[in-house]
This record gives sequence, structure tokens and C-alpha cells, in this order.
Amino acid sequence: METILEIVQYVRGHLNDGPPAIMKASGEGKKIVGTYCTYMPWELVDAAGAIAASLCAKSDKPIPAAEEHLPRNLCPLIKASYGHALKDTCPYFHFCDVVIAETTCDGKKKMYELMNLMKPVYTIQIPQRADRPEDFDHLKREFQGVRRYLEGIAGRPVTDEDIRRSIALRNRERMALRALWELSAFDDPPLSGLEVHYFTEYMHFHFDKESAIPWLEEQVRKIRSAWEGGERRGHGGKPRVLVTGCPAGGVVKVMEALENAGALVVCYENCGGQKELTWLVDEDRDPMDALAEKYLAIGCSVMSPNVRRMDALKYLAGRYRADGVVEILLTACHTYAVEAYGVRNLVQSLGKKYLLVETDYSESDREQLATRMDAFIEML
Amino acid sequence: METILEIVQYVRGHLNDGPPAIMKASGEGKKIVGTYCTYMPWELVDAAGAIAASLCAKSDKPIPAAEEHLPRNLCPLIKASYGHALKDTCPYFHFCDVVIAETTCDGKKKMYELMNLMKPVYTIQIPQRADRPEDFDHLKREFQGVRRYLEGIAGRPVTDEDIRRSIALRNRERMALRALWELSAFDDPPLSGLEVHYFTEYMHFHFDKESAIPWLEEQVRKIRSAWEGGERRGHGGKPRVLVTGCPAGGVVKVMEALENAGALVVCYENCGGQKELTWLVDEDRDPMDALAEKYLAIGCSVMSPNVRRMDALKYLAGRYRADGVVEILLTACHTYAVEAYGVRNLVQSLGKKYLLVETDYSESDREQLATRMDAFIEML
Repeated sequence: METILEIVQYVRGHLNDGPPAIMKASGEGKKIVGTYCTYMPWELVDAAGAIAASLCAKSDKPIPAAEEHLPRNLCPLIKASYGHALKDTCPYFHFCDVVIAETTCDGKKKMYELMNLMKPVYTIQIPQRADRPEDFDHLKREFQGVRRYLEGIAGRPVTDEDIRRSIALRNRERMALRALWELSAFDDPPLSGLEVHYFTEYMHFHFDKESAIPWLEEQVRKIRSAWEGGERRGHGGKPRVLVTGCPAGGVVKVMEALENAGALVVCYENCGGQKELTWLVDEDRDPMDALAEKYLAIGCSVMSPNVRRMDALKYLAGRYRADGVVEILLTACHTYAVEAYGVRNLVQSLGKKYLLVETDYSESDREQLATRMDAFIEML
Repeated sequence: METILEIVQYVRGHLNDGPPAIMKASGEGKKIVGTYCTYMPWELVDAAGAIAASLCAKSDKPIPAAEEHLPRNLCPLIKASYGHALKDTCPYFHFCDVVIAETTCDGKKKMYELMNLMKPVYTIQIPQRADRPEDFDHLKREFQGVRRYLEGIAGRPVTDEDIRRSIALRNRERMALRALWELSAFDDPPLSGLEVHYFTEYMHFHFDKESAIPWLEEQVRKIRSAWEGGERRGHGGKPRVLVTGCPAGGVVKVMEALENAGALVVCYENCGGQKELTWLVDEDRDPMDALAEKYLAIGCSVMSPNVRRMDALKYLAGRYRADGVVEILLTACHTYAVEAYGVRNLVQSLGKKYLLVETDYSESDREQLATRMDAFIEML
């Protein structure tokens, strides 16, 4: 039987499977849709028989090129996205037929106008609040537009049945990820936060969901049974931290600093983590209604007010027994930056410690991060 | 007969009439609606018998207080707005019954959530693009919501007839302002750009439009006839500059630097200038349709794409025979910052010089501004 560490090593060894896979799919004539954001309904892309590929947005390298067109004082995720596209250093962008983007934040919205000069960018108009019937109608109408657009790409109708099948598949993926994350709720969890992050990354770039999902389910079963058989990784008694805020994929250094300082990241509330998992897509409803309902419930800071996120933080901090909350703020992300005021108040009202870390994709603050995390962990 | 200078001096002497006027109106039981943005349909406020008062957003002073709740890296206009409210240093905020705000940029949208803890803030959901029938429907529906909200404030129905009357009045104000601005199209204009700015400011804070509009019409007539009678102010032959970008009211230092360097500001494309004046509200249409159509046509950088602004810049640069374009960028305003790339390209394609000035409300860059403007003017 594999040890937990062996499973983790397998995952870490397969984090770069994405580029050859996308090249192969493209060579086979598959349509490839580049995406950036959690608001993008993957289900519709799947239903059209296309591949939804998350585009590169996590590296420091393309940023200087991006800054020739974009302002410096802009979130690194936006600059990296644009720079990768401009310099053709993202294999997913290179092979994608179109980008389906979305009006979430100002910076992305405006950047997409420039990106549209390189590849066709279809932009979903996301409502800016989520609590009224007209917001639901708005998002549903936008998703209907995406569906028609994808029908054009696919050259065939996308039926309700196609969408229902994709919803079921993606729900199964969500449940598998939930089962993975659930392991971190244990007292002495089998995986570190970084390791959990690598699993999520792995799933992002394994496009054949019909095989990737059963694989993930199997790994979770194996990890769970190894843990039940007594295998421990030395995570018991560590201070438990919930990570929230901006997408964390480009700033793994923060989780590294946290876990190097002796903490254990037990929950990611961010995009790529539990933000999108508040609930599954309702399989007993009209599929377009169900998608609109589900995606409208994402607790992103672009929503105003963003009640869902506050509710989720409260729930998750309890569920994962977090001692502290670390909020990641990518430089110049206004929506998370302003919302941080309310998050701090909420976390402190729960009797938990809160730390706001403003950072970007550079390596220059690694030492400072280590010092701050040491100090934070000492308080827990 | 008054000289042009005497008229200008009168205006400059009455720029602080606003606070006593608003106090008086409040004392008389008038409902006061605080507003921030060009997307706010003044006509509906007028129609409800209330006063629409532009809230303070132009001073450096309240910013440190605002930064206790808001991030530092945020546009000074947003921080000033919030800081004034927090410290109760804006008479219009103090006396207003409600604020009618709008989802334009991310920073404002999120700031309004915090402001809502001080005063009731009603937020209009502005669409993020303007070119589809559903965007029109969206804005019209939002304006209908504002109308109902104002009916609640006024305690009486707001009739179509009320709105039609307000539309006619505000159109008359727009035409009076246009006539004022038209003076700057002359070869040797009677007013400097700064003086034009003071007229606009004056109109902002003279709430009795029934008397302020005829007053403005009269001043323009007087200035025009003085000019036709041969009065000159020494503006002939100066390099002519169009100002665009973020709202300029808090950074008058930029226009001062420009005109001190020997240029003449002949046109403001910004909010508070011609941005809102692309066209009048159609008086021959259903009034709610006409308002939605008019406000949707505002060429704000929050729109994506923002074709209207590019068209307006092209037209205005020609109409006012601008030699150069100065774009004002308030620090951390992402939408204008990203859009600046396209504006620069457009302006240069017109064979005109372009200068991007990123600044905030502090005084610290006055010297640097003077140097940059000297260099820019030399190129014209």
C-alpha cells in the first residue's frame, strides 16, 4: 500500500502534465476555451464538447512585458495573464480558440479589451450584486449568451441533456475535492495545506475529467485509509490557519511561509478553494436556472454587498477549527482590499486572529513574509 | 458694462455659496439627496422635489482618516469622499437625507458598503457595457428603482410630467454650459480653462436651477458681447490643450500648472466637463427611456468597451483645435489607467501630443508638475 507521502509525491511529479495534454487535444481538433475566473461556467464548455483550460496567471516573469501596455499599479494576476498572452508563454493561451472572460473586477475587465486584440475574447457580464431576482435573471441571460456562443464554436446545438451531464460530472468533481478538503478538518490531518494546494492544481490541468475524478476519489480513499490505519504526518497540535482573500495560486510563498513557521493551512476560502463550493449545482432544476443560481452564489468581493463570503468565512473557520485567518491581498486588488476591513472585524468577532498580507508575485518579500508569519503564529 | 474679468471675479467670489444654501434648504424641510457621480440622473431627484447635492470629494484633508478603514492604494477621490463623511466635514453629506450612489468602479462600489453604515446609501447598478438592448433595459430598470426610492423619500408619486419638466430644465442647464464651453473654441478665447472650471463649479453648488440657469445664460451673453466688442484676455496664440481622464475637480493644480506654463485649457472631456454632454435628454421620448438612453451614452472608462469616449475625444480635439491632450489619472484608478493605452494611441494617431499625468490630492508634486508641463508645452 502506498504511503500518504508517496501519493503526494506522485501528485507533485505530475503538476506539469497540462501543456502536453493541451497540445495533444489541440492536435486532435478539440476546441479549447481559455478561462480565468471562477464565474466561468465550466459546465457549458464541457457540454459543448470543448476543453476549458485555465490560462496562465501565476508567474512574475511576463509582468515587465505586460507593463509596457498596462499600468504598473495593477494586480499581478492581471498583468501576468496579459503578459503571458502577449509573449506567447502560456501553452493554454497559445492553443485556445477563444477566451471566455468575465466582468469581475475593473482591471480584468479593461485588460480584456486589449487581450481581445490577440485572441477573440467573449466577456460575460457578471452582475455586481447577487440578492435580487433581477440579478439572477441577468446572470441567466448572460449564461444563455455563453451557451449560444459555444454552440457557434462547437458547430452544433448544446442541448439541455448535454448540460445536465456536465453538471453531474462537475458536481462529482466538486464532491471529490470536498472529500479531499474534508481531510484537513481532522485533528492531525494527513495533508499539509501546500499538499492540498497541489492536488487542486493537479485537478485544474487534468482535462479528462472522466478519468481524473475517479483518480482523485481513489487517492482520497487511500489517504483516508492510511490515516485510519495510523499513518501520521506530524500535523497534530500545529496552529490551524484558514487562508482567504485573492487567488493564492501565484503566491504559494505565503503558504510556504506559514507552514515553514509551523502552522498548518487547513482551509482555503479563496477561488480555487472552497469559494466556488458553497454548494453544488442543483441537478433537479432547469439546468440554466441551476447554473445561474450556483454561480451567483460565489462569494467574490466584486459582489456588493458580499454576504456570502462573510457567511462562508464564519462557517469554514468553525468547521475547520481555524485558530487564525490569513488574508492574501494581491497588490492593487481594490475589492478585496476594501472588503478586508469587514473581514478583519468578522474574524476578530469570532475570537480568532487575523493577518492581512499584501503581496505580489515577486520574490523580494520572502524574508519579510517569514518574519511576519513567525510573529503571527506565535500569537495563535 | 462689466468686463469679462469682473464677471470672472464675481464667480470666484461665490464659489462658497453652497454650504449656507444647503443649510437653509435643509432648515426649510427640503429633502436632500447626496450624489457623487455623473451616472446619477439628477432629473429624477429634481422631479421628486428634492435637491441633488454633489458630495465633497476633492480635498486631501480627510484622506488620513479614511485610510483607517480603506486601503492606502485607492483613488484619492474615493478616500476623500469617505473621509469627509466619516469626519463630518462635508456640509452636503451632513445635511443630506440619503446618498444615491452607483456601481461605477470597484473602489467606489465597495466603499459605499462602509458609507452605508453612516447614512442610507442607495446604489444604482450601472451596466458595464452600453451597446446592447439588454444594457439599455438594465439601466432603465435601475432608474425605475431610483424613481420608486425617491417617491418613498418624497412621500408622493413622481409623475412622468414631473420628470419631463426636470428634463427640460436640466437640458437648458446643459445648453447653457455648452454655450459657455463653446467660448473656448474661439481663436483667442475670452476665458482661461481655470476660469471655465470655476463657472462649472459655481453651477454645481447653486441649487436653485430656476435662477442659476438664466444667470449663467446671461453671463455667457455678456462675455460673448464683451469679446465681440473687442475685449481680449491674451489667450490668442497659446498652445491649446484638451484635458481628459479622471474627474479633475480635486487636482486643479494640474490645470494651474498647464496654464502657468503658458498653455490654454480649451476643453474638459472629463466628468464635470463635456463627458456628460455628448447629447441632451430626448424630450420627445418616454422620459424613463430618454434618461436611460442619455446616461448609458456617458463615455466613462468603467464601460467596456468605451467607444463613446474615443469618439468624443476625436470630435472634441478637432472641435476645440487642441494641440495636445493631457490625461489626468488619479492614483489607482484602474479603469482610466488601463484605458490610457488606447487613448494615447488615438491621440497620437490624430497627430497630437499626449501627456499622462498620474497624481493625487497632495501638494507634493506641484514642482514636478510645473517641470513636466513646461516640457510638454514646449513640444506643442
